[in-house]
Amino acid sequence: MTATQLTLIQIDNYGPWTVTPEPRREMDLQTMQSRLFADLAQFVGSRDGYVFFTRFDNMVAVTNGLDRTDHELLQESIGNRYPVTVSLGIGVDDDPAEALEAATERVQAAGSAQSPERTEALAGEFVAEPADADVHIAHFDVNDATTKYTDRLNEFDSFIRIEQAYASLMRYMREAHGALSFFVGGDNVIAVCPDLDGDDYRAAIDHVATEVGVDLKVGVGAAATPQEAGIDAKHALEDCRYEGTLVEFA
Amino acid sequence: MTATQLTLIQIDNYGPWTVTPEPRREMDLQTMQSRLFADLAQFVGSRDGYVFFTRFDNMVAVTNGLDRTDHELLQESIGNRYPVTVSLGIGVDDDPAEALEAATERVQAAGSAQSPERTEALAGEFVAEPADADVHIAHFDVNDATTKYTDRLNEFDSFIRIEQAYASLMRYMREAHGALSFFVGGDNVIAVCPDLDGDDYRAAIDHVATEVGVDLKVGVGAAATPQEAGIDAKHALEDCRYEGTLVEFA
Amino acid sequence: MTATQLTLIQIDNYGPWTVTPEPRREMDLQTMQSRLFADLAQFVGSRDGYVFFTRFDNMVAVTNGLDRTDHELLQESIGNRYPVTVSLGIGVDDDPAEALEAATERVQAAGSAQSPERTEALAGEFVAEPADADVHIAHFDVNDATTKYTDRLNEFDSFIRIEQAYASLMRYMREAHGALSFFVGGDNVIAVCPDLDGDDYRAAIDHVATEVGVDLKVGVGAAATPQEAGIDAKHALEDCRYEGTLVEFA
Amino acid sequence: MTATQLTLIQIDNYGPWTVTPEPRREMDLQTMQSRLFADLAQFVGSRDGYVFFTRFDNMVAVTNGLDRTDHELLQESIGNRYPVTVSLGIGVDDDPAEALEAATERVQAAGSAQSPERTEALAGEFVAEPADADVHIAHFDVNDATTKYTDRLNEFDSFIRIEQAYASLMRYMREAHGALSFFVGGDNVIAVCPDLDGDDYRAAIDHVATEVGVDLKVGVGAAATPQEAGIDAKHALEDCRYEGTLVEFA
Repeated sequence: MTATQLTLIQIDNYGPWTVTPEPRREMDLQTMQSRLFADLAQFVGSRDGYVFFTRFDNMVAVTNGLDRTDHELLQESIGNRYPVTVSLGIGVDDDPAEALEAATERVQAAGSAQSPERTEALAGEFVAEPADADVHIAHFDVNDATTKYTDRLNEFDSFIRIEQAYASLMRYMREAHGALSFFVGGDNVIAVCPDLDGDDYRAAIDHVATEVGVDLKVGVGAAATPQEAGIDAKHALEDCRYEGTLVEFA
Repeated sequence: MTATQLTLIQIDNYGPWTVTPEPRREMDLQTMQSRLFADLAQFVGSRDGYVFFTRFDNMVAVTNGLDRTDHELLQESIGNRYPVTVSLGIGVDDDPAEALEAATERVQAAGSAQSPERTEALAGEFVAEPADADVHIAHFDVNDATTKYTDRLNEFDSFIRIEQAYASLMRYMREAHGALSFFVGGDNVIAVCPDLDGDDYRAAIDHVATEVGVDLKVGVGAAATPQEAGIDAKHALEDCRYEGTLVEFA
Repeated sequence: MTATQLTLIQIDNYGPWTVTPEPRREMDLQTMQSRLFADLAQFVGSRDGYVFFTRFDNMVAVTNGLDRTDHELLQESIGNRYPVTVSLGIGVDDDPAEALEAATERVQAAGSAQSPERTEALAGEFVAEPADADVHIAHFDVNDATTKYTDRLNEFDSFIRIEQAYASLMRYMREAHGALSFFVGGDNVIAVCPDLDGDDYRAAIDHVATEVGVDLKVGVGAAATPQEAGIDAKHALEDCRYEGTLVEFA
Repeated sequence: MTATQLTLIQIDNYGPWTVTPEPRREMDLQTMQSRLFADLAQFVGSRDGYVFFTRFDNMVAVTNGLDRTDHELLQESIGNRYPVTVSLGIGVDDDPAEALEAATERVQAAGSAQSPERTEALAGEFVAEPADADVHIAHFDVNDATTKYTDRLNEFDSFIRIEQAYASLMRYMREAHGALSFFVGGDNVIAVCPDLDGDDYRAAIDHVATEVGVDLKVGVGAAATPQEAGIDAKHALEDCRYEGTLVEFA
């Protein structure tokens, strides 16, 4: 039984800020967004959590191992160093989508994403007693992406293949299992999952191959924290590579 | 007639590096990737270009206004400050996809993305005489994304809508027009386009609405540099918002 | 009785690296150094420690509250994201200079600062049982620095005053008390001190006034961690400002 | 005849901001300051200028080669990405101290460093016609710093030696020649100088040796931009190292 703790990180009133008083330079917005994400990755990651950039103005983190005090500190530190602030909602559930639902509702209850009144809301619940397999991480990548795409197609056409595969996988995993899948660069997708078996993962890989013609493989890990589960998943994915298999569990 | 100068930025031998000697902590990779992108955004952006994170190990920049010396300096500076190096290919064409094709081929000709022998390759051609409407930028966003999605759905379900819309739009624009569309966060997609008219943009919006049920609008700008064209496009998009229209040209 | 845990952070073989194969662009070195410091400030600071840039290639941190695992993680994360690596030595003593002596000796024992053989050394001891007043932090600033200097003199002549005051204070506090004083920007100096009384601090302020003619004041805090002691010291310094006093204890 | 263009970069109303509404976490301030400096180093440095962190809330840049538009863009970009803004004053003179005097006066004329009313002031003059030897850069370091200090003393005692040498050199060069000397980390000091000869530099080295007992050497370069002059100075300093000399001109 998993117990995934998910945090929604939402920049307060960001849309209006980006065009006030005039639309701001896009590359400054891109810089600010990606650095904010990088800082979250360091803060959460060095506490063995994972964070995903998602839409950048809304980011999703797996925060098993981080408590309320950690979240308060993160919020304060961002406020001290950025021109924007963030609101945080935290939820826990064995179904990742349900955990994010609870997290999101807490932020929404504090006000709209475009409300100038809502600043640095923080509400949530936290995993009470961490257990060994609370977090399941599946690390997918594309078979032979470099030889089939990167070294042969122009970069956008490679990217289209990856993107279509991601769009297909993310929707399937969400609908079939309440799992949340995030593109993390290259040809890699990391999914936060409930407890699934080999057939479940094979079915997901089949779905993507059938729908968009891209071949995936996946390594899966389970642990008390995202970092441990994720490293196990990476090792399992290396096993796929060496063994020529499609699904490996750590 | 457009003349888009596109630069492919490819991290050298990145895949192998991420798992040598052991798979590296994912949040460190995420931090490094997003900060590298942020630095490119500042370098290119402060010279009035645009850069998109694409797959992070491969990034695409619109570099009208940057010459060979600028590219050499960028490459040297990254090499001085990061544990990885980058290769650069540059192409120019009125069709953005063709420009990227030329840029990519130059990098591929220097060696595989996973070759330890290829380091800091740089090859390309540059716009000889900049002209007023060399670059066309279209800035799309989702109608009422905050009220329809962000403030109502859980963040992943909002993200699925945006992502499906993006996957649909990027493929359509590539196939119909050789335009390259990039998700830039929130509900925003920026496309580098050839010279298109209002009907072309309306057809793209219709395609996405029909295929995935998400409603877009778009502002379009044209100028000698991406930054100017892009700011014009943002103002045009603001016009859409106030006028309730779907397509506006600056 | 204080128990200060000090960490020496030394970039491995940095001098030779900066000129290999040719001297590197100075502004790239400055960027890399200051960002490395910023990352250390976030890692150590979010665990309630303090870090000072000192000479940038050698930085000193007060790390009460951080254990060996934290130090290992810090070292690994820097190695994953920078073109350089760091060695770490840790020492504990009620005399800060002695603690740093022990920390430094551990790094020196592993090899020269310019040895290509020494990479990511880590050795030290850690505070076993944290106690309430382990760390004493004194926060000095210059009386009326803005009106007397910043708003009146050219910036370099203001800076000379601050710098002479700092050079005088750092030497005095080291020789008289084994305290370590660090310039932290503006007109601020933060000192890591043993248990000193009001007369000790007044004598230091007198020394600087006599030697270089700059008037200081100081707030002092004591706590189990640098962050708590430091915030208390800042509040005490605010008290000096409102009361017109020279020395305040939290 | 030199023509040094100096820019004073002053954070607007920074002191009050750091304690509003309560004193902010010191490590967040350190992070923000050093990253702001790093960004300036990239912006100015990639345009062949130099910037020095000085007091961090006031930074000094040598900006030969950057015009008014560059300064406006820098100011706008910082304002888009940081919780603080900066004012800029620019001055030109053959005497660096006079150039900074003019630059500082322009910022001071716009309002106090602690005035909430002054935001993003920008005033100055720019080098009209760049010439070959406009900028003279002297790069000093300490003879055998690693073997005499870093590998033998505790880090603070090494730092005291470097700091005393710097305090002595900065004051001497300012008073004797109107030159501005900045500590840049390690055992390195970079000075922006008027046209000086070998005897002038030898006298400065003698002064420091006599006053504080630290032995320096120096390489000197002259060019149209700080980056070119600075790289030449670094090469000249390498010559000192190989030849065993104290002063070398490129």
